[in-house]
Amino acid sequence: MTELTLDSVREMDRKDPLASFRDRFEIPEGVIYLDGNSLGCLPKATPERIETVVREEWGRDLIRSWNTADWIHAPRRVGTKIARLIGAGADEVVAADSTSINVFKALSACLQLNPERTTLLSERGNFPTDVYMMQGLSVLSGGRIETRLVDGEDIMGALDETVAALLLTHVHYKTGRMRDMKAVTAAAHEKGIPVIWDLSHSAGAVKVDLNGANADFAVGCGYKYLNGGPGAPAFIFAAKRHQESVFPALSGWLGHAAPFEFDDTYRPAPGIDRFQCGTPGILGMAALETGLDLMLDADMTMIRFKSLALGSLFVALMEDLCDQHGFTLACPADEAERGSQVSFHHPDGYAIMQAVIARGVIGDFRAPDILRFGFAPLYNSFEDVWHAVEAIRGVMESGEWRNDRYAQRAAVT
Amino acid sequence: MTELTLDSVREMDRKDPLASFRDRFEIPEGVIYLDGNSLGCLPKATPERIETVVREEWGRDLIRSWNTADWIHAPRRVGTKIARLIGAGADEVVAADSTSINVFKALSACLQLNPERTTLLSERGNFPTDVYMMQGLSVLSGGRIETRLVDGEDIMGALDETVAALLLTHVHYKTGRMRDMKAVTAAAHEKGIPVIWDLSHSAGAVKVDLNGANADFAVGCGYKYLNGGPGAPAFIFAAKRHQESVFPALSGWLGHAAPFEFDDTYRPAPGIDRFQCGTPGILGMAALETGLDLMLDADMTMIRFKSLALGSLFVALMEDLCDQHGFTLACPADEAERGSQVSFHHPDGYAIMQAVIARGVIGDFRAPDILRFGFAPLYNSFEDVWHAVEAIRGVMESGEWRNDRYAQRAAVT
Repeated sequence: MTELTLDSVREMDRKDPLASFRDRFEIPEGVIYLDGNSLGCLPKATPERIETVVREEWGRDLIRSWNTADWIHAPRRVGTKIARLIGAGADEVVAADSTSINVFKALSACLQLNPERTTLLSERGNFPTDVYMMQGLSVLSGGRIETRLVDGEDIMGALDETVAALLLTHVHYKTGRMRDMKAVTAAAHEKGIPVIWDLSHSAGAVKVDLNGANADFAVGCGYKYLNGGPGAPAFIFAAKRHQESVFPALSGWLGHAAPFEFDDTYRPAPGIDRFQCGTPGILGMAALETGLDLMLDADMTMIRFKSLALGSLFVALMEDLCDQHGFTLACPADEAERGSQVSFHHPDGYAIMQAVIARGVIGDFRAPDILRFGFAPLYNSFEDVWHAVEAIRGVMESGEWRNDRYAQRAAVT
Repeated sequence: MTELTLDSVREMDRKDPLASFRDRFEIPEGVIYLDGNSLGCLPKATPERIETVVREEWGRDLIRSWNTADWIHAPRRVGTKIARLIGAGADEVVAADSTSINVFKALSACLQLNPERTTLLSERGNFPTDVYMMQGLSVLSGGRIETRLVDGEDIMGALDETVAALLLTHVHYKTGRMRDMKAVTAAAHEKGIPVIWDLSHSAGAVKVDLNGANADFAVGCGYKYLNGGPGAPAFIFAAKRHQESVFPALSGWLGHAAPFEFDDTYRPAPGIDRFQCGTPGILGMAALETGLDLMLDADMTMIRFKSLALGSLFVALMEDLCDQHGFTLACPADEAERGSQVSFHHPDGYAIMQAVIARGVIGDFRAPDILRFGFAPLYNSFEDVWHAVEAIRGVMESGEWRNDRYAQRAAVT
């Protein structure tokens, strides 16, 4: 690598084939935003789209918009667009509910595929809501269903014939470590275990090939790399081969074969539609669809390439800070194992991150000691990375992070 | 009653103390909207509020808005506003998810309160999603939990010691019949049965006094009389006395006591917060809150008074049409038993409703034969009712409803 200077970094931006996408997002003045893995930036097309939905579809056309604006098919239409980003078929994904709720749908589906098995398996330190949804299902079953958490490296050894479902996050939210979806899925299948992949930190950020990996179920979030807005609808993937075997546990009316017949008896809709439940939030769906339309204009291979380059630049620039100020790498150094973020341990991570944010560089902190920086290749530049590391350097060299105000924990970290 | 003429009806509007609220809604030109029980009209304040959320809170302040715009407390803040409309305590309601999902939460909570009991009871012809959620829970339990549907008039006789939960809609979506919440709840409690009230057609439309009725759980919808927009977040009420006994089946991270500690073990948040699950949709929450703020400026007693007057006027004006054109009243004639809608049976109801809609009067059809007209006293006028009945009269006298195009069923009816 040639010596890294601001000039050489700017040269990377000049050569970046995705550079023009940045103009399609609102990037606030004075902000370096490296938290698109928590909430993606606002696409410039979104406010106008939302205004049309509010003023025209809702305000003017009112109830008729379920048909005339095709609100009723929004979950499928949006799902089909997500499918293109994750290697799924058009009839295998639906946008609906939250990631947590979709985890529950997938877990209960696996229990139906494996009615004799009683263990739900995941890894310690997985994103909490995934593990929590397992625990709620266990309590609901009166203890018949058991949850088992093992250390991440022990997952393969824990696959046995008691396991009804394996629930893993593809890219870990703290470490950014990416699992080998194909290998893990194959190993699980050898023991008859269907796998649920949480793609919250994958969709739109790394290449995902669900069908190439022979995946069973997947869920994920719309508000991170898909730029769907705060609390955007989530999604669920169910492999075509499983769909007809599942009687949804969350059997709401919009998953019914004929919801407007107002039958007394639930009959699951054919295929993926049965994974819908209640009435979809149309404002959220519209914002998510606008974010997806933008992303589908880009090439996922180029996104992944740039994402890794941004991450590797960050790691390289942090090298002397790690030596001098006590950061240690929390994400894999190996690009093949890394998602679209880098992260570092530091015992004073919370205060340091607040001080960095005060300098206009937004990453986030994850308890107990992780500083996390996400890369959204459609709007992050190599120069962003340069300035972010300079901000960290400034914060450490000045010691300004020791200011008491940076120790105050906010409600949301 | 003096003879009803357009003039006498206009006089009612002149004397209506709620008349000024109509100006705070967008009412499309040429439309008489009597479908606020399906999707409420757009408050004029909503587009600007949504634009602020999109452009400023999301676009400019990004992830920081979870704290600075207090997104994180939106479910509680909105829930507290709903609580004021339904006779609940400020710490007993949370806005979250869909009505269907909240039904599941309430049903599974009742099963925990009554661990020895295995029957979920409701009425035939209840709103489908309520009944469907019971059925999904039954399948999930491997058949241990049984669902039982009886005719509406047989509910009281079906209350026995096998019943773990009684799930009823307070105001029936087709007939508009309102149940006596206090009497039913008391009868159920005598048998140790907690009751779940679906308030989808009650909240903001009729007086509800959950705590006065000693209610256990309730759910309801944000997009009807609360004017929260298409697919608005729903809500759930859990009586304070039950909250600490429930380990939520849908145990998502935002129902955790300390979500940002990222623990491996679910610990329910104190009180009503445990009924949250995943990340709330902030655009939907903002629209719902704007609708609620408008409604809270009005007096619920006046809303109820006007609602009944609108309904009784409709019924009176329809009298000769019933005689001459085969409509029969599907809602209670007695105001005390009626919610905020009227409905009529007609064997050709679907085509008739489409022809009425083509004349600019929007009600809706519910299979198999119900024409439904809802009254939102904040924006519907007595003159609306007059013109609606005149439109029905025109459609019947001309026979225009027989046109083939009115027989075509849309995806959503």
